[in-house]
Amino acid sequence: MSLLIVGTTALDSIKTPNSENPRLLGGSASHAAVAASFFSQVSLLGVVGDDFPEEYIELYKKHQIDLSGLEKAAGNTFHWEGEYEVNMNNRRTLETDLGVIEDWMPNVTSPLNEKAYILLANCAPQLQHHVLKQMKQPKFVVADTMDLWLNIARHELEQLLKDVDCLVLNDSEARQFTEEDNVVIAAQSLHKYGPKYVIVKKGEHGAILSGPSGLFIAPAFPLDSVIDPTGAGDSFVGGLVGYLASHDGDIDDNLRQAIIHGTVTASFCCEGFGLASTTITTRECINKRVEALSQLVAF
Amino acid sequence: MSLLIVGTTALDSIKTPNSENPRLLGGSASHAAVAASFFSQVSLLGVVGDDFPEEYIELYKKHQIDLSGLEKAAGNTFHWEGEYEVNMNNRRTLETDLGVIEDWMPNVTSPLNEKAYILLANCAPQLQHHVLKQMKQPKFVVADTMDLWLNIARHELEQLLKDVDCLVLNDSEARQFTEEDNVVIAAQSLHKYGPKYVIVKKGEHGAILSGPSGLFIAPAFPLDSVIDPTGAGDSFVGGLVGYLASHDGDIDDNLRQAIIHGTVTASFCCEGFGLASTTITTRECINKRVEALSQLVAF
Repeated sequence: MSLLIVGTTALDSIKTPNSENPRLLGGSASHAAVAASFFSQVSLLGVVGDDFPEEYIELYKKHQIDLSGLEKAAGNTFHWEGEYEVNMNNRRTLETDLGVIEDWMPNVTSPLNEKAYILLANCAPQLQHHVLKQMKQPKFVVADTMDLWLNIARHELEQLLKDVDCLVLNDSEARQFTEEDNVVIAAQSLHKYGPKYVIVKKGEHGAILSGPSGLFIAPAFPLDSVIDPTGAGDSFVGGLVGYLASHDGDIDDNLRQAIIHGTVTASFCCEGFGLASTTITTRECINKRVEALSQLVAF
Repeated sequence: MSLLIVGTTALDSIKTPNSENPRLLGGSASHAAVAASFFSQVSLLGVVGDDFPEEYIELYKKHQIDLSGLEKAAGNTFHWEGEYEVNMNNRRTLETDLGVIEDWMPNVTSPLNEKAYILLANCAPQLQHHVLKQMKQPKFVVADTMDLWLNIARHELEQLLKDVDCLVLNDSEARQFTEEDNVVIAAQSLHKYGPKYVIVKKGEHGAILSGPSGLFIAPAFPLDSVIDPTGAGDSFVGGLVGYLASHDGDIDDNLRQAIIHGTVTASFCCEGFGLASTTITTRECINKRVEALSQLVAF
Protein backbone atom coordinates (compact mmCIF):
# COMPACT_ATOMS: atom_id res chain seq x y z
CA MET A 1 0.00 0.00 0.00
CA SER A 2 0.97 3.64 -0.33
CA LEU A 3 3.46 5.30 2.02
CA LEU A 4 4.18 8.96 2.70
CA ILE A 5 7.31 9.97 4.59
CA VAL A 6 7.83 13.49 5.91
CA GLY A 7 10.92 14.69 7.77
CA THR A 8 14.23 16.40 7.18
CA THR A 9 16.12 16.29 3.91
CA ALA A 10 19.57 17.44 4.87
CA LEU A 11 23.22 17.69 4.06
CA ASP A 12 25.33 16.03 6.75
CA SER A 13 29.00 16.71 7.38
CA ILE A 14 30.29 13.81 9.44
CA LYS A 15 33.65 13.53 11.14
CA THR A 16 35.04 10.37 12.67
CA PRO A 17 38.51 9.83 14.14
CA ASN A 18 39.64 8.57 10.73
CA SER A 19 37.63 10.49 8.19
CA GLU A 20 35.85 13.71 7.17
CA ASN A 21 32.83 13.52 4.90
CA PRO A 22 31.29 16.87 3.99
CA ARG A 23 27.77 17.47 2.72
CA LEU A 24 26.55 13.90 2.39
CA LEU A 25 22.88 13.27 1.70
CA GLY A 26 21.23 12.89 5.09
CA GLY A 27 18.22 13.83 7.19
CA SER A 28 15.56 11.67 8.78
CA ALA A 29 13.32 11.53 5.69
CA SER A 30 16.20 10.73 3.33
CA HIS A 31 17.41 7.78 5.38
CA ALA A 32 13.88 6.57 6.08
CA ALA A 33 12.74 6.89 2.46
CA VAL A 34 15.69 4.97 1.01
CA ALA A 35 15.26 2.28 3.69
CA ALA A 36 11.51 2.03 3.01
CA SER A 37 12.09 1.89 -0.74
CA PHE A 38 13.34 -1.71 -0.48
CA PHE A 39 9.83 -2.74 0.55
CA SER A 40 7.30 -0.24 -0.75
CA GLN A 41 6.65 2.63 -3.12
CA VAL A 42 7.56 5.78 -1.17
CA SER A 43 6.44 9.39 -1.53
CA LEU A 44 8.79 11.89 0.07
CA LEU A 45 7.53 15.16 1.55
CA GLY A 46 10.39 17.55 2.24
CA VAL A 47 12.17 20.75 1.35
CA VAL A 48 15.65 21.43 0.06
CA GLY A 49 17.52 24.62 -0.75
CA ASP A 50 18.95 25.76 -4.04
CA ASP A 51 22.32 24.28 -3.00
CA PHE A 52 20.94 20.73 -3.06
CA PRO A 53 23.12 18.60 -5.37
CA GLU A 54 21.47 17.06 -8.42
CA GLU A 55 23.27 13.77 -7.70
CA TYR A 56 21.15 13.36 -4.55
CA ILE A 57 17.99 13.80 -6.59
CA GLU A 58 19.34 11.04 -8.81
CA LEU A 59 19.92 8.87 -5.72
CA TYR A 60 16.27 9.29 -4.67
CA LYS A 61 15.20 8.47 -8.22
CA LYS A 62 17.37 5.34 -8.26
CA HIS A 63 15.16 4.14 -5.40
CA GLN A 64 11.96 5.02 -7.27
CA ILE A 65 11.06 7.57 -4.61
CA ASP A 66 8.18 9.83 -5.67
CA LEU A 67 9.52 13.38 -5.39
CA SER A 68 6.33 15.27 -6.24
CA GLY A 69 6.26 16.42 -2.60
CA LEU A 70 9.90 17.54 -2.48
CA GLU A 71 9.94 21.32 -2.62
CA LYS A 72 12.92 23.38 -3.68
CA ALA A 73 13.10 26.72 -1.87
CA ALA A 74 15.46 29.68 -2.09
CA GLY A 75 18.12 29.34 0.58
CA ASN A 76 20.31 26.67 2.12
CA THR A 77 19.42 23.04 2.61
CA PHE A 78 19.29 22.01 6.29
CA HIS A 79 22.90 21.26 7.23
CA TRP A 80 24.13 19.26 10.22
CA GLU A 81 27.75 18.85 11.20
CA GLY A 82 28.69 16.25 13.76
CA GLU A 83 31.68 14.41 15.12
CA TYR A 84 31.93 10.86 16.46
CA GLU A 85 34.34 9.61 19.10
CA VAL A 86 36.18 6.29 18.77
CA ASN A 87 33.23 4.82 20.67
CA MET A 88 30.55 5.44 18.06
CA ASN A 89 27.88 5.63 20.76
CA ASN A 90 29.22 9.10 21.55
CA ARG A 91 28.81 11.99 19.15
CA ARG A 92 28.48 15.74 19.39
CA THR A 93 26.88 18.29 17.14
CA LEU A 94 29.35 20.85 15.86
CA GLU A 95 26.90 22.99 13.92
CA THR A 96 23.28 23.07 12.81
CA ASP A 97 21.92 25.31 10.08
CA LEU A 98 18.17 24.82 9.70
CA GLY A 99 18.08 26.66 6.39
CA VAL A 100 14.91 26.36 4.37
CA ILE A 101 13.23 23.87 6.73
CA GLU A 102 12.98 26.47 9.50
CA ASP A 103 9.69 27.97 8.37
CA TRP A 104 8.48 25.18 6.09
CA MET A 105 4.84 24.18 6.62
CA PRO A 106 3.75 22.34 3.46
CA ASN A 107 0.33 22.01 1.89
CA VAL A 108 -0.35 18.34 1.34
CA THR A 109 -2.61 17.95 -1.66
CA SER A 110 -4.01 14.98 -3.53
CA PRO A 111 -2.75 12.34 -4.19
CA LEU A 112 -0.14 12.71 -1.39
CA ASN A 113 -2.76 13.34 1.29
CA GLU A 114 -4.44 10.04 0.43
CA LYS A 115 -1.57 7.76 1.42
CA ALA A 116 -2.49 5.03 3.88
CA TYR A 117 0.78 4.63 5.75
CA ILE A 118 2.38 7.75 7.18
CA LEU A 119 5.85 8.02 8.65
CA LEU A 120 6.41 11.24 10.53
CA ALA A 121 10.19 10.89 10.54
CA ASN A 122 12.13 12.84 13.14
CA CYS A 123 11.51 16.58 12.82
CA ALA A 124 9.66 19.29 14.76
CA PRO A 125 6.42 17.92 16.26
CA GLN A 126 4.60 21.01 14.97
CA LEU A 127 5.62 20.10 11.42
CA GLN A 128 4.72 16.43 11.96
CA HIS A 129 1.29 17.41 13.26
CA HIS A 130 0.74 19.97 10.50
CA VAL A 131 1.26 17.25 7.88
CA LEU A 132 -0.76 14.62 9.72
CA LYS A 133 -3.79 16.90 10.05
CA GLN A 134 -3.95 17.20 6.27
CA MET A 135 -4.05 13.47 5.63
CA LYS A 136 -7.44 12.14 4.49
CA GLN A 137 -7.72 8.61 5.85
CA PRO A 138 -4.45 7.33 7.22
CA LYS A 139 -4.49 3.62 8.07
CA PHE A 140 -1.37 3.63 10.25
CA VAL A 141 0.70 6.56 11.49
CA VAL A 142 4.19 6.15 12.92
CA ALA A 143 6.07 9.06 14.54
CA ASP A 144 9.77 9.09 15.33
CA THR A 145 11.19 11.73 17.65
CA MET A 146 14.33 12.75 19.56
CA ASP A 147 15.44 14.32 22.84
CA LEU A 148 15.60 17.81 21.30
CA TRP A 149 11.79 17.92 20.98
CA LEU A 150 11.33 16.63 24.52
CA ASN A 151 13.45 19.57 25.63
CA ILE A 152 11.98 22.38 23.53
CA ALA A 153 8.57 21.20 22.25
CA ARG A 154 7.21 18.70 24.74
CA HIS A 155 3.70 20.11 24.69
CA GLU A 156 3.54 19.97 20.88
CA LEU A 157 4.88 16.40 20.96
CA GLU A 158 2.21 15.37 23.46
CA GLN A 159 -0.47 16.91 21.27
CA LEU A 160 0.86 14.98 18.26
CA LEU A 161 0.95 11.68 20.16
CA LYS A 162 -2.83 11.77 20.62
CA ASP A 163 -3.13 11.24 16.86
CA VAL A 164 -0.43 8.66 16.12
CA ASP A 165 -0.66 4.87 16.21
CA CYS A 166 2.99 4.14 16.90
CA LEU A 167 5.71 6.15 18.63
CA VAL A 168 9.39 5.35 18.08
CA LEU A 169 12.11 6.78 20.33
CA ASN A 170 15.43 5.91 21.99
CA ASP A 171 15.68 4.27 25.40
CA SER A 172 17.24 7.37 26.95
CA GLU A 173 14.40 9.45 25.49
CA ALA A 174 11.79 7.01 26.81
CA ARG A 175 13.34 7.36 30.25
CA GLN A 176 13.47 11.14 29.96
CA PHE A 177 9.88 11.37 28.70
CA THR A 178 8.41 9.19 31.45
CA GLU A 179 10.91 9.87 34.27
CA GLU A 180 10.90 6.08 34.66
CA ASP A 181 14.22 4.27 34.92
CA ASN A 182 13.00 0.81 33.92
CA VAL A 183 12.77 0.79 30.14
CA VAL A 184 9.99 -1.83 30.07
CA ILE A 185 7.83 0.31 32.34
CA ALA A 186 8.81 3.43 30.40
CA ALA A 187 7.68 1.84 27.13
CA GLN A 188 4.40 0.69 28.61
CA SER A 189 3.64 4.00 30.28
CA LEU A 190 3.97 5.90 26.99
CA HIS A 191 0.67 4.39 25.78
CA LYS A 192 -1.23 6.80 27.97
CA TYR A 193 -0.15 9.66 25.69
CA GLY A 194 -2.02 8.01 22.81
CA PRO A 195 0.05 5.54 20.78
CA LYS A 196 -1.26 1.98 20.72
CA TYR A 197 2.27 0.84 19.85
CA VAL A 198 5.51 2.07 21.38
CA ILE A 199 8.91 1.03 20.04
CA VAL A 200 11.99 1.82 22.12
CA LYS A 201 15.26 1.76 20.18
CA LYS A 202 18.33 0.55 22.06
CA GLY A 203 20.96 0.91 19.31
CA GLU A 204 23.33 -2.07 19.25
CA HIS A 205 21.12 -3.73 21.89
CA GLY A 206 18.05 -3.94 19.66
CA ALA A 207 14.57 -2.63 20.37
CA ILE A 208 11.50 -3.28 22.51
CA LEU A 209 7.95 -3.15 21.21
CA SER A 210 5.05 -2.64 23.59
CA GLY A 211 1.64 -3.17 22.03
CA PRO A 212 -1.77 -4.74 22.49
CA SER A 213 -0.19 -8.21 22.33
CA GLY A 214 2.38 -7.36 24.97
CA LEU A 215 6.12 -7.04 24.53
CA PHE A 216 8.41 -8.06 21.71
CA ILE A 217 12.14 -8.13 22.44
CA ALA A 218 13.97 -7.53 19.15
CA PRO A 219 17.69 -8.08 18.70
CA ALA A 220 19.88 -5.83 16.59
CA PHE A 221 21.91 -7.39 13.79
CA PRO A 222 25.43 -7.75 15.23
CA LEU A 223 28.02 -5.81 13.23
CA ASP A 224 31.75 -6.31 13.39
CA SER A 225 32.34 -2.92 11.80
CA VAL A 226 30.42 0.31 12.32
CA ILE A 227 31.59 3.06 9.96
CA ASP A 228 28.92 5.72 10.61
CA PRO A 229 25.73 5.21 12.65
CA THR A 230 24.19 8.50 11.43
CA GLY A 231 20.69 7.75 10.18
CA ALA A 232 20.52 4.23 11.63
CA GLY A 233 17.44 5.07 13.69
CA ASP A 234 15.79 6.70 10.65
CA SER A 235 16.65 3.67 8.49
CA PHE A 236 15.19 1.40 11.19
CA VAL A 237 11.85 3.16 11.22
CA GLY A 238 11.87 3.58 7.43
CA GLY A 239 12.44 -0.13 6.84
CA LEU A 240 9.82 -0.90 9.47
CA VAL A 241 7.08 1.25 7.94
CA GLY A 242 8.06 0.23 4.41
CA TYR A 243 7.66 -3.41 5.40
CA LEU A 244 4.26 -2.73 6.99
CA ALA A 245 3.03 -0.80 3.94
CA SER A 246 3.90 -3.72 1.69
CA HIS A 247 2.13 -6.37 3.76
CA ASP A 248 -1.63 -6.61 3.96
CA GLY A 249 -3.36 -7.72 7.09
CA ASP A 250 -3.32 -6.89 10.74
CA ILE A 251 -0.56 -4.64 12.06
CA ASP A 252 -0.24 -6.88 15.10
CA ASP A 253 0.53 -9.84 12.84
CA ASN A 254 3.17 -8.01 10.81
CA LEU A 255 4.88 -5.70 13.28
CA ARG A 256 7.47 -8.15 14.62
CA GLN A 257 8.71 -8.97 11.12
CA ALA A 258 8.57 -5.25 10.29
CA ILE A 259 10.83 -4.43 13.25
CA ILE A 260 13.28 -7.16 12.23
CA HIS A 261 13.38 -5.91 8.65
CA GLY A 262 13.87 -2.37 9.98
CA THR A 263 16.75 -3.40 12.23
CA VAL A 264 18.45 -5.25 9.38
CA THR A 265 18.05 -2.30 7.00
CA ALA A 266 19.58 -0.08 9.71
CA SER A 267 22.54 -2.44 9.98
CA PHE A 268 23.45 -1.72 6.35
CA CYS A 269 23.21 2.01 7.06
CA CYS A 270 25.90 1.71 9.76
CA GLU A 271 28.36 0.08 7.39
CA GLY A 272 29.09 3.18 5.33
CA PHE A 273 29.04 6.97 5.56
CA GLY A 274 25.69 8.64 5.02
CA LEU A 275 23.62 6.54 2.64
CA ALA A 276 26.65 5.01 0.88
CA SER A 277 26.06 1.49 2.16
CA THR A 278 22.25 1.57 2.33
CA THR A 279 21.91 2.65 -1.25
CA ILE A 280 23.94 -0.25 -2.64
CA THR A 281 22.11 -2.96 -0.72
CA THR A 282 19.23 -4.96 -2.16
CA ARG A 283 16.07 -6.59 -0.92
CA GLU A 284 17.84 -9.92 -1.42
CA CYS A 285 20.73 -8.84 0.85
CA ILE A 286 18.21 -7.68 3.45
CA ASN A 287 16.36 -11.00 3.28
CA LYS A 288 19.62 -12.92 3.73
CA ARG A 289 20.50 -10.89 6.81
CA VAL A 290 17.01 -11.40 8.24
CA GLU A 291 17.50 -15.14 7.80
CA ALA A 292 20.96 -14.91 9.41
CA LEU A 293 19.53 -12.95 12.34
CA SER A 294 16.86 -15.57 12.77
CA GLN A 295 19.60 -18.22 13.11
CA LEU A 296 21.64 -16.02 15.48
CA VAL A 297 18.81 -15.80 18.00
CA ALA A 298 17.30 -19.30 17.68
CA PHE A 299 17.23 -21.44 20.83
CA MET B 1 26.46 -35.10 35.53
CA SER B 2 28.44 -33.84 38.50
CA LEU B 3 29.17 -30.17 39.05
CA LEU B 4 31.69 -28.41 41.28
CA ILE B 5 31.40 -24.68 41.96
CA VAL B 6 34.18 -22.71 43.60
CA GLY B 7 34.02 -19.01 44.41
CA THR B 8 33.19 -16.63 47.20
CA THR B 9 30.74 -17.41 49.98
CA ALA B 10 30.03 -14.03 51.46
CA LEU B 11 27.84 -11.86 53.59
CA ASP B 12 26.51 -8.91 51.61
CA SER B 13 25.18 -5.69 53.09
CA ILE B 14 23.14 -4.03 50.37
CA LYS B 15 21.71 -0.51 50.41
CA THR B 16 19.24 0.84 47.92
CA PRO B 17 17.46 4.21 47.96
CA ASN B 18 14.57 2.53 49.79
CA SER B 19 16.09 -0.19 51.90
CA GLU B 20 19.04 -1.48 53.96
CA ASN B 21 19.72 -5.20 54.11
CA PRO B 22 22.66 -6.20 56.29
CA ARG B 23 24.61 -9.46 56.09
CA LEU B 24 22.56 -11.32 53.50
CA LEU B 25 23.89 -14.59 52.10
CA GLY B 26 25.88 -13.64 49.01
CA GLY B 27 29.08 -14.26 47.10
CA SER B 28 29.63 -15.61 43.60
CA ALA B 29 29.58 -19.28 44.62
CA SER B 30 26.45 -18.91 46.76
CA HIS B 31 24.43 -17.30 43.98
CA ALA B 32 25.81 -19.67 41.35
CA ALA B 33 25.26 -22.80 43.45
CA VAL B 34 21.65 -22.01 44.29
CA ALA B 35 20.98 -21.13 40.63
CA ALA B 36 22.64 -24.36 39.43
CA SER B 37 20.73 -26.43 42.00
CA PHE B 38 17.52 -26.10 39.97
CA PHE B 39 19.15 -28.19 37.25
CA SER B 40 21.88 -30.35 38.73
CA GLN B 41 23.40 -31.76 41.88
CA VAL B 42 25.95 -29.17 43.04
CA SER B 43 29.06 -29.45 45.19
CA LEU B 44 30.19 -26.17 46.71
CA LEU B 45 33.85 -25.44 47.40
CA GLY B 46 34.23 -22.42 49.64
CA VAL B 47 35.22 -21.03 53.01
CA VAL B 48 33.24 -19.18 55.64
CA GLY B 49 34.21 -17.69 58.99
CA ASP B 50 32.93 -18.57 62.41
CA ASP B 51 30.39 -15.75 62.11
CA PHE B 52 28.53 -17.54 59.29
CA PRO B 53 24.86 -17.90 60.25
CA GLU B 54 23.48 -21.42 60.57
CA GLU B 55 20.35 -20.35 58.66
CA TYR B 56 22.47 -19.90 55.53
CA ILE B 57 23.78 -23.45 55.88
CA GLU B 58 20.14 -24.50 56.03
CA LEU B 59 19.45 -22.51 52.86
CA TYR B 60 22.20 -24.39 51.02
CA LYS B 61 20.82 -27.67 52.35
CA LYS B 62 17.33 -26.79 51.20
CA HIS B 63 18.80 -26.77 47.70
CA GLN B 64 20.53 -30.14 48.23
CA ILE B 65 23.93 -28.51 47.80
CA ASP B 66 26.78 -30.82 48.85
CA LEU B 67 28.70 -28.92 51.52
CA SER B 68 31.55 -31.39 52.05
CA GLY B 69 33.86 -28.81 50.40
CA LEU B 70 32.65 -25.87 52.49
CA GLU B 71 35.33 -25.12 55.06
CA LYS B 72 34.75 -23.22 58.26
CA ALA B 73 37.79 -21.19 59.33
CA ALA B 74 38.52 -19.00 62.35
CA GLY B 75 37.82 -15.39 61.44
CA ASN B 76 35.24 -13.35 59.56
CA THR B 77 33.30 -14.44 56.53
CA PHE B 78 34.07 -12.35 53.43
CA HIS B 79 31.86 -9.28 53.77
CA TRP B 80 30.88 -6.84 51.00
CA GLU B 81 28.94 -3.65 51.52
CA GLY B 82 27.51 -1.84 48.54
CA GLU B 83 25.02 0.84 47.64
CA TYR B 84 22.82 1.14 44.55
CA GLU B 85 21.59 4.37 42.99
CA VAL B 86 18.01 4.80 41.75
CA ASN B 87 19.35 3.59 38.39
CA MET B 88 20.30 0.06 39.44
CA ASN B 89 22.99 -0.07 36.75
CA ASN B 90 25.07 2.15 39.05
CA ARG B 91 26.47 0.88 42.32
CA ARG B 92 29.47 1.60 44.49
CA THR B 93 31.33 -0.53 46.98
CA LEU B 94 31.29 0.98 50.47
CA GLU B 95 33.48 -1.61 52.16
CA THR B 96 35.13 -4.97 51.49
CA ASP B 97 36.48 -7.27 54.20
CA LEU B 98 38.07 -10.35 52.62
CA GLY B 99 38.17 -12.19 55.94
CA VAL B 100 38.95 -15.89 55.79
CA ILE B 101 39.01 -16.07 51.98
CA GLU B 102 42.12 -13.89 51.79
CA ASP B 103 44.63 -16.72 52.21
CA TRP B 104 42.39 -19.66 51.38
CA MET B 105 43.92 -22.19 48.96
CA PRO B 106 41.95 -25.43 49.39
CA ASN B 107 43.01 -29.02 48.82
CA VAL B 108 40.52 -30.64 46.51
CA THR B 109 40.35 -34.32 47.31
CA SER B 110 38.23 -37.19 46.01
CA PRO B 111 35.36 -37.26 45.21
CA LEU B 112 35.24 -33.47 44.69
CA ASN B 113 38.22 -33.46 42.32
CA GLU B 114 36.43 -35.95 40.06
CA LYS B 115 33.54 -33.68 39.07
CA ALA B 116 33.05 -33.34 35.32
CA TYR B 117 31.64 -29.80 35.15
CA ILE B 118 33.58 -27.05 36.88
CA LEU B 119 32.40 -23.52 37.49
CA LEU B 120 35.16 -21.21 38.59
CA ALA B 121 32.78 -18.52 39.85
CA ASN B 122 34.11 -14.99 40.19
CA CYS B 123 37.07 -14.86 42.62
CA ALA B 124 40.86 -14.38 42.40
CA PRO B 125 42.26 -16.04 39.25
CA GLN B 126 45.03 -17.57 41.39
CA LEU B 127 42.39 -19.33 43.49
CA GLN B 128 40.45 -20.39 40.40
CA HIS B 129 43.60 -21.85 38.83
CA HIS B 130 44.69 -23.52 42.09
CA VAL B 131 41.40 -25.41 42.22
CA LEU B 132 41.34 -26.23 38.51
CA LYS B 133 44.84 -27.75 38.58
CA GLN B 134 43.66 -30.27 41.17
CA MET B 135 40.75 -31.55 39.09
CA LYS B 136 41.27 -35.03 37.63
CA GLN B 137 39.39 -35.06 34.33
CA PRO B 138 37.15 -32.08 33.90
CA LYS B 139 34.80 -32.32 30.93
CA PHE B 140 33.90 -28.63 30.74
CA VAL B 141 35.36 -25.71 32.66
CA VAL B 142 33.66 -22.32 32.86
CA ALA B 143 35.33 -19.28 34.44
CA ASP B 144 33.60 -16.07 35.41
CA THR B 145 35.62 -12.97 36.19
CA MET B 146 35.35 -9.22 36.85
CA ASP B 147 37.14 -5.94 36.20
CA LEU B 148 38.98 -6.09 39.54
CA TRP B 149 41.08 -9.03 38.31
CA LEU B 150 41.79 -7.32 35.01
CA ASN B 151 43.17 -4.44 37.05
CA ILE B 152 45.22 -6.30 39.65
CA ALA B 153 45.78 -9.86 38.36
CA ARG B 154 45.70 -9.75 34.59
CA HIS B 155 48.71 -12.04 34.16
CA GLU B 156 47.20 -14.68 36.47
CA LEU B 157 43.88 -14.40 34.62
CA GLU B 158 45.61 -14.91 31.27
CA GLN B 159 47.39 -17.99 32.65
CA LEU B 160 44.05 -19.37 33.85
CA LEU B 161 42.35 -18.78 30.51
CA LYS B 162 44.72 -21.20 28.79
CA ASP B 163 43.03 -23.98 30.74
CA VAL B 164 39.33 -23.05 30.60
CA ASP B 165 36.76 -23.96 27.97
CA CYS B 166 34.44 -21.01 28.48
CA LEU B 167 35.03 -17.47 29.74
CA VAL B 168 32.16 -15.33 31.03
CA LEU B 169 32.56 -11.59 31.58
CA ASN B 170 30.70 -8.27 31.26
CA ASP B 171 30.71 -6.19 28.06
CA SER B 172 32.70 -3.40 29.72
CA GLU B 173 35.22 -5.98 30.89
CA ALA B 174 35.45 -7.54 27.42
CA ARG B 175 36.17 -4.07 26.02
CA GLN B 176 38.74 -3.38 28.75
CA PHE B 177 40.43 -6.77 28.29
CA THR B 178 40.77 -6.48 24.52
CA GLU B 179 40.94 -2.69 24.11
CA GLU B 180 38.36 -3.22 21.38
CA ASP B 181 35.28 -1.04 21.33
CA ASN B 182 33.05 -3.30 19.24
CA VAL B 183 31.68 -5.93 21.59
CA VAL B 184 31.31 -8.55 18.82
CA ILE B 185 34.98 -8.20 17.89
CA ALA B 186 35.94 -8.09 21.58
CA ALA B 187 34.14 -11.40 22.22
CA GLN B 188 35.73 -13.04 19.21
CA SER B 189 39.22 -11.81 19.99
CA LEU B 190 39.13 -13.33 23.49
CA HIS B 191 39.41 -16.83 22.00
CA LYS B 192 43.09 -16.28 21.41
CA TYR B 193 43.67 -16.39 25.17
CA GLY B 194 42.41 -19.97 25.22
CA PRO B 195 38.64 -20.31 25.73
CA LYS B 196 36.75 -22.04 22.94
CA TYR B 197 33.59 -20.29 24.13
CA VAL B 198 33.27 -16.67 25.22
CA ILE B 199 30.07 -15.31 26.74
CA VAL B 200 29.72 -11.54 27.12
CA LYS B 201 27.08 -10.46 29.64
CA LYS B 202 25.22 -7.24 28.84
CA GLY B 203 22.92 -7.06 31.88
CA GLU B 204 19.39 -6.00 30.91
CA HIS B 205 20.45 -6.21 27.24
CA GLY B 206 21.17 -9.95 27.33
CA ALA B 207 24.35 -11.76 26.36
CA ILE B 208 26.44 -12.71 23.34
CA LEU B 209 28.04 -16.12 22.87
CA SER B 210 30.98 -16.56 20.54
CA GLY B 211 31.91 -20.17 19.87
CA PRO B 212 32.86 -22.68 17.18
CA SER B 213 29.38 -22.37 15.65
CA GLY B 214 29.60 -18.59 15.51
CA LEU B 215 27.55 -16.10 17.46
CA PHE B 216 24.39 -16.48 19.53
CA ILE B 217 22.53 -13.31 20.47
CA ALA B 218 20.64 -14.00 23.70
CA PRO B 219 17.97 -11.71 25.11
CA ALA B 220 17.55 -11.03 28.80
CA PHE B 221 14.17 -11.71 30.38
CA PRO B 222 12.49 -8.30 30.61
CA LEU B 223 11.66 -7.32 34.18
CA ASP B 224 9.27 -4.61 35.22
CA SER B 225 10.75 -4.51 38.70
CA VAL B 226 14.39 -4.88 39.73
CA ILE B 227 14.81 -5.00 43.51
CA ASP B 228 18.50 -5.95 43.78
CA PRO B 229 20.72 -7.03 40.88
CA THR B 230 23.49 -8.26 43.20
CA GLY B 231 24.45 -11.78 42.14
CA ALA B 232 22.56 -11.71 38.85
CA GLY B 233 25.71 -12.43 36.85
CA ASP B 234 26.62 -15.26 39.23
CA SER B 235 23.09 -16.67 38.98
CA PHE B 236 23.32 -16.46 35.18
CA VAL B 237 26.50 -18.50 35.00
CA GLY B 238 25.30 -20.87 37.73
CA GLY B 239 22.06 -21.62 35.92
CA LEU B 240 24.00 -21.96 32.67
CA VAL B 241 26.50 -24.52 33.99
CA GLY B 242 23.83 -26.32 36.00
CA TYR B 243 21.79 -26.75 32.84
CA LEU B 244 24.82 -28.02 30.90
CA ALA B 245 25.73 -30.49 33.64
CA SER B 246 22.23 -31.95 33.55
CA HIS B 247 22.14 -32.44 29.78
CA ASP B 248 24.15 -35.10 28.00
CA GLY B 249 25.54 -34.53 24.58
CA ASP B 250 27.55 -31.94 22.77
CA ILE B 251 28.15 -28.59 24.48
CA ASP B 252 27.54 -26.84 21.17
CA ASP B 253 24.07 -28.40 21.00
CA ASN B 254 23.13 -27.42 24.55
CA LEU B 255 24.80 -24.07 25.14
CA ARG B 256 22.08 -21.81 23.69
CA GLN B 257 19.42 -23.37 25.89
CA ALA B 258 21.86 -23.24 28.81
CA ILE B 259 22.35 -19.49 28.32
CA ILE B 260 18.59 -18.96 28.16
CA HIS B 261 18.03 -20.96 31.35
CA GLY B 262 20.86 -19.00 32.98
CA THR B 263 19.36 -15.65 31.99
CA VAL B 264 15.95 -16.66 33.29
CA THR B 265 17.39 -17.89 36.59
CA ALA B 266 19.19 -14.55 36.90
CA SER B 267 15.92 -12.71 36.34
CA PHE B 268 14.50 -14.27 39.51
CA CYS B 269 17.63 -13.20 41.40
CA CYS B 270 16.95 -9.53 40.52
CA GLU B 271 13.45 -9.65 41.96
CA GLY B 272 14.50 -9.82 45.60
CA PHE B 273 17.36 -8.89 47.91
CA GLY B 274 20.25 -11.33 48.01
CA LEU B 275 18.95 -14.84 47.39
CA ALA B 276 15.45 -14.10 48.70
CA SER B 277 13.72 -14.44 45.35
CA THR B 278 15.98 -17.09 43.79
CA THR B 279 15.55 -19.46 46.69
CA ILE B 280 11.77 -19.50 46.49
CA THR B 281 11.57 -20.14 42.77
CA THR B 282 11.16 -23.59 41.24
CA ARG B 283 12.25 -25.40 38.14
CA GLU B 284 8.65 -25.15 36.97
CA CYS B 285 8.69 -21.34 37.34
CA ILE B 286 11.98 -21.22 35.43
CA ASN B 287 10.55 -23.37 32.64
CA LYS B 288 7.48 -21.14 32.39
CA ARG B 289 9.67 -18.04 32.07
CA VAL B 290 11.84 -19.75 29.43
CA GLU B 291 8.67 -20.46 27.46
CA ALA B 292 7.52 -16.85 27.94
CA LEU B 293 10.90 -15.56 26.76
CA SER B 294 10.67 -17.78 23.71
CA GLN B 295 7.35 -16.10 22.85
CA LEU B 296 8.72 -12.62 23.56
CA VAL B 297 11.46 -12.98 20.95
CA ALA B 298 9.65 -15.01 18.27
CA PHE B 299 9.37 -13.45 14.82
